[in-house]
Amino acid sequence: MSLTFEHVTLGQRVLFGTGKAADNLAAEVRRFGAQRVMVIASESEAAIAGQVTAGIEAALNYDDVAPHVPIEKAEKARTAAAEHGIDLLVCVGGGSTTGLAKAIALTTGLPIVAVPTTYAGSEATNVWGLTEAARKTTGVDDKVLPATVIYDASLTLSLPVELSVASGLNGMAHCIDSMWGPRVDPINQALAAEGIRALNQGLPGIVQDPQGLQGREQALYGAYLSAVAFASAGSGMHHKICHVLGGTWNMPHAQTHATVLPYVLAFNAPAAPDAAERIAAAFGTTDAVDGLNRLREQLDAPKALKDYGFAEENIAEAVDLILPVIPASNPRPGTKENLAALLRAATAGDDPKTLTDL
Amino acid sequence: MSLTFEHVTLGQRVLFGTGKAADNLAAEVRRFGAQRVMVIASESEAAIAGQVTAGIEAALNYDDVAPHVPIEKAEKARTAAAEHGIDLLVCVGGGSTTGLAKAIALTTGLPIVAVPTTYAGSEATNVWGLTEAARKTTGVDDKVLPATVIYDASLTLSLPVELSVASGLNGMAHCIDSMWGPRVDPINQALAAEGIRALNQGLPGIVQDPQGLQGREQALYGAYLSAVAFASAGSGMHHKICHVLGGTWNMPHAQTHATVLPYVLAFNAPAAPDAAERIAAAFGTTDAVDGLNRLREQLDAPKALKDYGFAEENIAEAVDLILPVIPASNPRPGTKENLAALLRAATAGDDPKTLTDL
Repeated sequence: MSLTFEHVTLGQRVLFGTGKAADNLAAEVRRFGAQRVMVIASESEAAIAGQVTAGIEAALNYDDVAPHVPIEKAEKARTAAAEHGIDLLVCVGGGSTTGLAKAIALTTGLPIVAVPTTYAGSEATNVWGLTEAARKTTGVDDKVLPATVIYDASLTLSLPVELSVASGLNGMAHCIDSMWGPRVDPINQALAAEGIRALNQGLPGIVQDPQGLQGREQALYGAYLSAVAFASAGSGMHHKICHVLGGTWNMPHAQTHATVLPYVLAFNAPAAPDAAERIAAAFGTTDAVDGLNRLREQLDAPKALKDYGFAEENIAEAVDLILPVIPASNPRPGTKENLAALLRAATAGDDPKTLTDL
Repeated sequence: MSLTFEHVTLGQRVLFGTGKAADNLAAEVRRFGAQRVMVIASESEAAIAGQVTAGIEAALNYDDVAPHVPIEKAEKARTAAAEHGIDLLVCVGGGSTTGLAKAIALTTGLPIVAVPTTYAGSEATNVWGLTEAARKTTGVDDKVLPATVIYDASLTLSLPVELSVASGLNGMAHCIDSMWGPRVDPINQALAAEGIRALNQGLPGIVQDPQGLQGREQALYGAYLSAVAFASAGSGMHHKICHVLGGTWNMPHAQTHATVLPYVLAFNAPAAPDAAERIAAAFGTTDAVDGLNRLREQLDAPKALKDYGFAEENIAEAVDLILPVIPASNPRPGTKENLAALLRAATAGDDPKTLTDL
């Protein structure tokens, strides 16, 4: 089989160091020669942001942050940046905060230094999103890619264990689905495998020692890689399924992802032996599904869609909605029958391996 | 152990496809909106360059290429680019050709589309080199990083098997030495491991079927990754040893690298269990040295420095020269005694594993 791919590596500086965010940020502000910094952080992130920005001077502290970046909020922030003659955007927080910085960068071209406090991953991509009249528009533009990302696991200590695990499993879904996304290539697979390795080490560490840093570091590092790989490879079968279940039956995001993932993995693995081998190796197991299941047991992850409101009688409709959106890149072609079997198993919480022999 | 690193990812578009170089190049020239393209290729690369550039119009075809980029050649090429109002540099060839394009980009800021025909790897780095009065100067500047790299394994079919293997083992040395280079981080290690995997598949494929494409594709892909990882991680112990042996005793480059590598690996592996595990997994073996040795046997690689003119009586002097330049990042501290033992084993061609228990 011929090796053919297009891979765009996004140029970015990553500074990773626990307890070093303030020093690293001060050094970056100097490196940019920035004189007028806009610090973006929501009110709930104010304490962390104050600590991180202790070593720099802010021309503007901005906290009018909202989920999904409403266009009015974006425009207000852009105006504020212009009025204050801002030359560098620093965002400290989760996906919404990074999203607002991106919205400003999109129209101003201002560089961003991102200091993530969650595993959202937005800081590692050139994807922006804006919401207008309840409709979300997304796009891709290199202008919104943060020039520098500063990771500091100590900033994630206040992230509750349950949220850390849910968010980390979301990262795991990004990694695994990258293995057969529409723009998959071996570079994405290698980075995704490294992300799996890190998340598989980090997440149980957080559960065992919530205030310890080793697990938090590995999880944060893994979440970064999951975003890099997923942004490059694109949404695979897993994300298409979860998107339909979330959109049509209002299923909870984290639980749906955590439940569906092993079924998609078991479904695709026999048709993607290379990917399955990479995944298994990253888990340190000989079988990919075994590796994921071991992690899910350690994390006491959700097991059945029926526990979150999805009923067996919805399966036929779900199949009709999902089948047309499964990417052509999916290693195992979906059919009404095998997709129904996958959803039946995931609804009941059956052993995912029953799908392997379909 | 805390995870602390700075990793700069260089933004680049990689188009990988056998038989697709001409189409991919034409598409890139359109994407850049370039009107005045300078095509750089040495005389010996003229036939391949003609084929690759068949779909584009060149404002200037330039073939005055020489190894190590003499400054006079660089200045002449810069003048030619200015006189012809060039807006895009396209280089087709090996390291010297890419090097000349970089020399032009360094002073002009012109973007480069690189079409490599060897495993040199220069196309994946922001490192430039110039030679003036027999002295080589190198530097790092993002301006010289090719914006796009077009890989086409069919362009490497004319690379003789022996040269392919030597060059591929050089790439392998870059990957393995990246595991403990001065700026090593887990991202470099993951990319280096992927490079090892690809080279380990590709190089025996070239030997078995020199006109086949599968081996050539994997080797070209692996050589790319080896350059990415090595440029980021920096020279480790292996390259310091080879540099001294080459510079002081005029040892042949390829043979020295191929011979020394397993000894450095065996020397460091016990002190770098994570790196050793990554290397072993990439080779598909349980032991890293076993994996490298299996490949070297398949390739009939050089085995002893004494076969290339290095004598036992040089070892004391070599130790004195090498010891001070071993990077502080090296997992196992070098001493006069253990370095002498390493060189004795490499000179005689002894089993590298004798070093593991030092």
